Amino acid sequence: MKQRFSSDIGWSTADKITIRGKSLPDDILGKINLGDFAFFQMTGVLPTKEQGEVFNAILVALVEHGLTPSALVARLTYAGAPESLQAAVAAGLCGLGTVFVGTMEGAARYLSEAVPLGTKPQADLDEMATAIVDKFFAAKQAIPGLGHPIHKPVDPRTKPLLSIAGRNGFGGVYIDLVQRVQREAERKSGKNLPLNATGAIGAIACELGFEWGVIRGFGVLARSIGLVGHIMEERRNPLALKVWTAAEDEASSHFKEA
Amino acid sequence: MKQRFSSDIGWSTADKITIRGKSLPDDILGKINLGDFAFFQMTGVLPTKEQGEVFNAILVALVEHGLTPSALVARLTYAGAPESLQAAVAAGLCGLGTVFVGTMEGAARYLSEAVPLGTKPQADLDEMATAIVDKFFAAKQAIPGLGHPIHKPVDPRTKPLLSIAGRNGFGGVYIDLVQRVQREAERKSGKNLPLNATGAIGAIACELGFEWGVIRGFGVLARSIGLVGHIMEERRNPLALKVWTAAEDEASSHFKEA
Amino acid sequence: MKQRFSSDIGWSTADKITIRGKSLPDDILGKINLGDFAFFQMTGVLPTKEQGEVFNAILVALVEHGLTPSALVARLTYAGAPESLQAAVAAGLCGLGTVFVGTMEGAARYLSEAVPLGTKPQADLDEMATAIVDKFFAAKQAIPGLGHPIHKPVDPRTKPLLSIAGRNGFGGVYIDLVQRVQREAERKSGKNLPLNATGAIGAIACELGFEWGVIRGFGVLARSIGLVGHIMEERRNPLALKVWTAAEDEASSHFKEA
Amino acid sequence: MKQRFSSDIGWSTADKITIRGKSLPDDILGKINLGDFAFFQMTGVLPTKEQGEVFNAILVALVEHGLTPSALVARLTYAGAPESLQAAVAAGLCGLGTVFVGTMEGAARYLSEAVPLGTKPQADLDEMATAIVDKFFAAKQAIPGLGHPIHKPVDPRTKPLLSIAGRNGFGGVYIDLVQRVQREAERKSGKNLPLNATGAIGAIACELGFEWGVIRGFGVLARSIGLVGHIMEERRNPLALKVWTAAEDEASSHFKEA
Repeated sequence: MKQRFSSDIGWSTADKITIRGKSLPDDILGKINLGDFAFFQMTGVLPTKEQGEVFNAILVALVEHGLTPSALVARLTYAGAPESLQAAVAAGLCGLGTVFVGTMEGAARYLSEAVPLGTKPQADLDEMATAIVDKFFAAKQAIPGLGHPIHKPVDPRTKPLLSIAGRNGFGGVYIDLVQRVQREAERKSGKNLPLNATGAIGAIACELGFEWGVIRGFGVLARSIGLVGHIMEERRNPLALKVWTAAEDEASSHFKEA
Repeated sequence: MKQRFSSDIGWSTADKITIRGKSLPDDILGKINLGDFAFFQMTGVLPTKEQGEVFNAILVALVEHGLTPSALVARLTYAGAPESLQAAVAAGLCGLGTVFVGTMEGAARYLSEAVPLGTKPQADLDEMATAIVDKFFAAKQAIPGLGHPIHKPVDPRTKPLLSIAGRNGFGGVYIDLVQRVQREAERKSGKNLPLNATGAIGAIACELGFEWGVIRGFGVLARSIGLVGHIMEERRNPLALKVWTAAEDEASSHFKEA
Repeated sequence: MKQRFSSDIGWSTADKITIRGKSLPDDILGKINLGDFAFFQMTGVLPTKEQGEVFNAILVALVEHGLTPSALVARLTYAGAPESLQAAVAAGLCGLGTVFVGTMEGAARYLSEAVPLGTKPQADLDEMATAIVDKFFAAKQAIPGLGHPIHKPVDPRTKPLLSIAGRNGFGGVYIDLVQRVQREAERKSGKNLPLNATGAIGAIACELGFEWGVIRGFGVLARSIGLVGHIMEERRNPLALKVWTAAEDEASSHFKEA
Repeated sequence: MKQRFSSDIGWSTADKITIRGKSLPDDILGKINLGDFAFFQMTGVLPTKEQGEVFNAILVALVEHGLTPSALVARLTYAGAPESLQAAVAAGLCGLGTVFVGTMEGAARYLSEAVPLGTKPQADLDEMATAIVDKFFAAKQAIPGLGHPIHKPVDPRTKPLLSIAGRNGFGGVYIDLVQRVQREAERKSGKNLPLNATGAIGAIACELGFEWGVIRGFGVLARSIGLVGHIMEERRNPLALKVWTAAEDEASSHFKEA
C-alpha cells in the first residue's frame, strides 16, 4: 500500500532505536546532554560546542521564574489530582500563551521579518530599527521584548545572555538589530525600555536559525522542567490549597460579610 | 501579616533573580547545561559531574520514541489550534499515565520499598528479589520494568544506561536488586523478560536518590522536548489530519458501506 | 480491506449526520435538551422523562461551586493565553481527580461492588452496610461521599437530590444502601458524617445504571460549563492576576523581607 | 482588610450554596435542565422558555461529530492514562482552536462588528453584506461559517437551527444579515457556499446577545459531553491503540522497508 504520511524523527525495531538517523543506544546515550539533544531533536543536526552552549543557556534561562501563574496552576491541579502528575504539568503549560511567552516569539518575528533567516540585511540596520519602532508605535502596540514590570532599569538576564551568544560567535545581525530597536524605542518614547530576557532570547533564537513560529516551544519545554520542580516542592511544602482558600475567602467576602 | 505559605524555589527583585539560593544571571546562565539545571531545580543541589552525566542520560533516553500516542495527540491538537503550541504539548503530556510511563515509577517503587532511600539493605538481596517476584506473581500483575512488546530479546537501551550509571559510581544496590528481580522473574515464569529502559531508569533514579512518586516527572519533562520536535515536523510535513481522516473513514466504514 | 476498528457513536455523509442511529437534524435538534442529549450520547438510549429529570439534576448540581481550585486554574490560564479559551477550560478540568471528584466514583464503586448493576441484593442491606463501613475503617480510609468540610451538619444538596430521584422512581436499593452506610458510619465513629452531594450522586448514578468508572465524567462535563462561566466573569472582572501577585508576594516574603 | 478582588458567581456557607443569587438546593435543583442552567451560569439570568429552547439546540448541535481529531485525542490519552478520565477530556478540548471551532466565533465577530450587540443596524443590510464579503475577498480569506468540506450542497443542520431560532422569536437582524452575506458570497465567487452550522450558530449566538469572544466556549462545553461519550465507547470497544499502531507503522514504513 502506498505510504500516505511519514515521520522521520524516530523509529524502532526489535534491536534498534533510531532518532533522526542516529542510534539512541550507541550514538546518543551518555554522549550528549539534554539541551544538546533538544537541539538535535528539533533540527536533526547535532549542535556544535558553541551552538550547544548558547542553546543550553537560553533554555536554562526559561526554566524557572518563581511562583508564576503557570506554577500556581500546576500546584493547584496537583492538589486535586496527585495521581496525575503529568496532567498538573500539562495544566501549567496551557497558559504559556501570548501574554507571557508571546513576547519571545514576537521579537523573533519582527527580527526575522526584517532580515529573513539565512539572508543578509538588504537595508541599513538603523533604518530598519526606525521602521520597526514606527510600526509598533503607529499600531499603539508595545514592542515585544522591551521593558519589564519588575526588572528595572535593566533585566539582569539580558547582559549575560548576549555575552554568551557573543563569545560563541552568535553576536550577529539579529543581536545588533534588536539593540538598535531598543535604543530607538527609548529615544522615541522618552521612556526606560530595557531589552528584557525574552527580547534577547528571541534575537538569539534567530541567530541560531530557528523560525519564530516554534520559539514558544523553548519556553514550553523549559517550563515543564520548572513545573516538575514546583510539584516536588508542593509535595514537601504544600501551598496550593492555602492559596485557594485565601483567594476564595477574599473573593466572596462581600457576600459573607453582608 | 503572618506568612501563611511559602515557596523557596525562586524569587525576584528589580535587579536579582534567585533560584534556590543562586543568582540566575551570575551563577547559572552559561555555566550549566539543561539537564544539570533540571537536577538543581528539583533537588536544590548542583549535581556532581557524575550525577550530571547519569541524570542527563536518563532524561535523554526518555525524550523521543517515534510516533507514540502522545506525539500523535500533540500533532492532532496542533492541527486544530496552531496558535496554541503550548496546548498541543500539554495535550500530548496528559496521556503519560500508568500505562506507558507508570512502569518507571512502579519499578522505583518496589525497589525503594525493599530498600528505603538512604538506607542499607536489611536482608539478602536474592531473598528480596524472590519476595518481590512472588508478590507480583501472586497478584497476577506484570512486574514493572520487565519485558517489552517490541524490543526482544533485550531492550537496546538497558545495557548503555546501566553502563553509564556504573562508570559514574551509581551501580549500587538498586541496580543490583533490579537485575536479581529480572533473573528470578525469568526463572519463575520460564519466559524471556528482559530488563527494559523504564526498569533501568527506575533503578538509576533510586541510585540518584529520587523518591518514586516524582519519577513520572522525568518522563513528562523529557517528552515535552520530544513533542516540540514533533510539532516542528508537523509544520514541515503534516500528518495529523491524514491520520485522522484515515481513522475516521475506517471507523465508520461499516455504516457508509451499508 | 478488513475494518480493523470501529466507532458507533456518529458518522456523516454529504446530507446526513447520524448520532447513535438517529438523525441529528431531523430527530434531535430542537427536540431534546442538553442534559437529555448527554444521556443519549453516553448510553445510546433516549432517557425517559423521569431519567432525564434525574440526570439533568445531578449534572446541574455539579456545574458550579464558586471559586474552586479548578475555577482558579482556568482563570489563571486564561490570563496568560486569552486566545485559547479552550486550553483554559482544559487546564481547569485537569485537577478533577481523586481528591475532589473521586468521592463520587468511590461511592458508586462500593455500592456497585456490593450490589452489581442490574442485579438484586444477595444479602441483607444492613449487613452489607456494616461490612462496607468495617472495610473502610479497617483500611483507615474515609468513606467516599460522607462528611463535608463546609456543609455541616448536613449538605444542603443531599435532600433535594434524593427527593428528585425518589419522586421519579429511582429511590431504589443504592439510595437505600448509601443511607444505611451513612448511619452505620456515624454510629461506629461517633461523629457527624452526613451524606454529601457526591455520595448522593454516586448512588443515583448507580440507580440510573452507570458503571462507577465513568461517573467522574459527569463532574468533568458539568464543570466545563461552570468554567466557561468563570472565564466570562474573568473577562468582565479579572481576578486571576491579582490572586497570583498576592500569592507570589506572600510566598516569597521571607526572602524579600530578609 | 480591603477586598482586592471578587467573584459574584457562587459562594457557600455551612447551610447555603448560592449561585448567581439563587439557592442551588431550593431554586435550581430539579427545576431547570442543564442547557438552561448553562445559560444562567453564563448570563446570570434564567432563560425564557424561548431562549432556553434555542440555547439548548445550539449546544446540542455541537456535542458530537463522530471520530473528530478531538475525539481521537481524548481516546489516545485515555488509553495511556485510564486513571485520569478528566485529563483525557482536557486533552481533547485543547485542539478546539481557530481551525475547527474558530469559524463560529469568526461569523459572530463580523456580524457583531457590523451591528453591535444591542443596537439597530445603521445601514442597509445588503450594503453591509456586500462590504463584509468584499473585505474577506480582498484579504483572500474564507468567510467564516460558509461552505463545508463534507456537507454539500447544504449543511443539513442549518435549516433546522434557523427554524428553531425563528419560531422562538430569534430570527432577527443577525440571521438576516448572515444569509445576505451567504448569497452575496455565492454570487461574487460563483461557487456553492452554503451557510454551515457554525455560521448559523454564530448568528444565533448574536441574536441571544452573546459577545463573539466567548462563543468558542459553547463548542468547548458541548464537546466535553461528546468526549465523555467517546471515552465510554473506548472502554467498551477500544480503538485508540489500533489507530496508533496503524499510524506508527505507516509513518515509519519507509524506514522499515528500506
